[in-house]
Amino acid sequence: MQINKLGEFGLIERIKKTIKTDASVIKGIGDDCAVLKLDKSRFLLCTCDMIIEGVDFVKGEDPFLVGRKALAISISDIAACAGTPRYCLVSLGLPKNTRVEMIDRIYRGMNSLAGKYKINIVGGDMSSSDKLTIDVTMIGEVDKKKLVLRSGAKTGDIIFVTGRFGGSIKGKHLKFTPCLEEARFLTRNFRVNSMIDASDGLCQDLGHILKESAAGAVLYEDLIPLSKEASGIRDGLSSGEDFELIFTLGIKEGRRLIASKKMFYPIGHIVNREYGLQFVDKHGRQKKIDPAGFRHY
Amino acid sequence: MQINKLGEFGLIERIKKTIKTDASVIKGIGDDCAVLKLDKSRFLLCTCDMIIEGVDFVKGEDPFLVGRKALAISISDIAACAGTPRYCLVSLGLPKNTRVEMIDRIYRGMNSLAGKYKINIVGGDMSSSDKLTIDVTMIGEVDKKKLVLRSGAKTGDIIFVTGRFGGSIKGKHLKFTPCLEEARFLTRNFRVNSMIDASDGLCQDLGHILKESAAGAVLYEDLIPLSKEASGIRDGLSSGEDFELIFTLGIKEGRRLIASKKMFYPIGHIVNREYGLQFVDKHGRQKKIDPAGFRHY
Repeated sequence: MQINKLGEFGLIERIKKTIKTDASVIKGIGDDCAVLKLDKSRFLLCTCDMIIEGVDFVKGEDPFLVGRKALAISISDIAACAGTPRYCLVSLGLPKNTRVEMIDRIYRGMNSLAGKYKINIVGGDMSSSDKLTIDVTMIGEVDKKKLVLRSGAKTGDIIFVTGRFGGSIKGKHLKFTPCLEEARFLTRNFRVNSMIDASDGLCQDLGHILKESAAGAVLYEDLIPLSKEASGIRDGLSSGEDFELIFTLGIKEGRRLIASKKMFYPIGHIVNREYGLQFVDKHGRQKKIDPAGFRHY
Repeated sequence: MQINKLGEFGLIERIKKTIKTDASVIKGIGDDCAVLKLDKSRFLLCTCDMIIEGVDFVKGEDPFLVGRKALAISISDIAACAGTPRYCLVSLGLPKNTRVEMIDRIYRGMNSLAGKYKINIVGGDMSSSDKLTIDVTMIGEVDKKKLVLRSGAKTGDIIFVTGRFGGSIKGKHLKFTPCLEEARFLTRNFRVNSMIDASDGLCQDLGHILKESAAGAVLYEDLIPLSKEASGIRDGLSSGEDFELIFTLGIKEGRRLIASKKMFYPIGHIVNREYGLQFVDKHGRQKKIDPAGFRHY
């Protein structure tokens, strides 16, 4: 059987079944970060993301932005767990004819975010490859009491997002700012039940929250904030790489967040699992939709 | 300028200069592992290694052995710092026509070592690529008092290796056992001044110890243990992927290790930096050699 028959998430599920972990692993494969015991008050967070020329960026793209993106997507995963990024390692696969000036610019892009967020680049590896490949492992930490996973959504929760969706391919995917500060604000001031960063598309990533929380959801077309680059609601629901956070709060906390007038958008609410993912269009028509967005296979 | 003019290590030096780290980083880029503050008694160790089809293994190689190797080389880096591997993340770049059964075998190979050494596979990423690419990040820990770096070699130290060199390409590079137990035995019973794992070749990796320790060395052809697969002394000195440990002990500790009759091989000694790397052949002729072995660029 070829992997595209199973799909990326089917493959991850299959791998997960073969893996055993010990009691020091709070959360292994299947969330934005792995969560590991560190000390009495903190967990260690780890995540890695690989980007490859031709898949995640095009040949000829500004290497500064490519390096920046490589770091940004891992920072976004740490944000989704309400953590603080601290250290990263960078593996580079480089074609033999790569120019040194290009590597300089990749690192300038990475250093721009590392400096901003006080992240230490502490190691890496290099290998020769046909296409430019960057794999970043980010290590962070989170106060035990602040950790948010995908699995905590409850019936009645209001679903929020941190920003607009769709059309990211036109530029945002290379220039987005990871929602670290938003996540910090939220977990300092509200009880956040579940959170994920939207890398694969709004519906698909909300789908991960629903699966891990054994829940369903209703989304309202009227409420979904579209980027001006989005081609329409379909694009907003399913195109990937927006890197906004999707999160849920209990009804009281959710109302308090709405009343705070901060820039978070309520887009729907959590319902019982049996409903699956329901979508209410602007004419009030409701239908069940499939949470599938962009997949690698 | 193309990267092959600068070379892999020139490139690493160049990158290192652009990177700033804070006081929690005991050792950043430039050792087998990054060493980070963890708690009062332990440091956190992190390392990553990327292997790519056609460079580090050939197409058609048993995926079990490829997966096993991907983990083994990172474990070897943790061993070189006298640490214990605990957690790992695996990024996979997979061609679209990859068979699921192949992924199963890759993970079976990884799980074989993860099980043996009680390592938790806690996360990863997947992307589509032209050639099978595996990047493993290994996180471990080390007792602060046991940490060994490349930089501690002192004039007069005896240089030892844990095993035989050369001809690894004929099979050992896919089947070696990382020297975790050897490193543990050494640091429990001896004061080890410096250590590295030999991935790029005996001379080149000893060269890293010499550079970081600002030292020179004399090696004796008669003493260098060659694998039966080695084509000769040149192969033993410069072909890579042996994954034995190279380490140095002060003269008294070194004599005590030799007297213990454990299977470690003394191959030479550390001298002042001005001498560079000296090689004494079996006829007693001494010459200065260049520590360059296999390089990616």
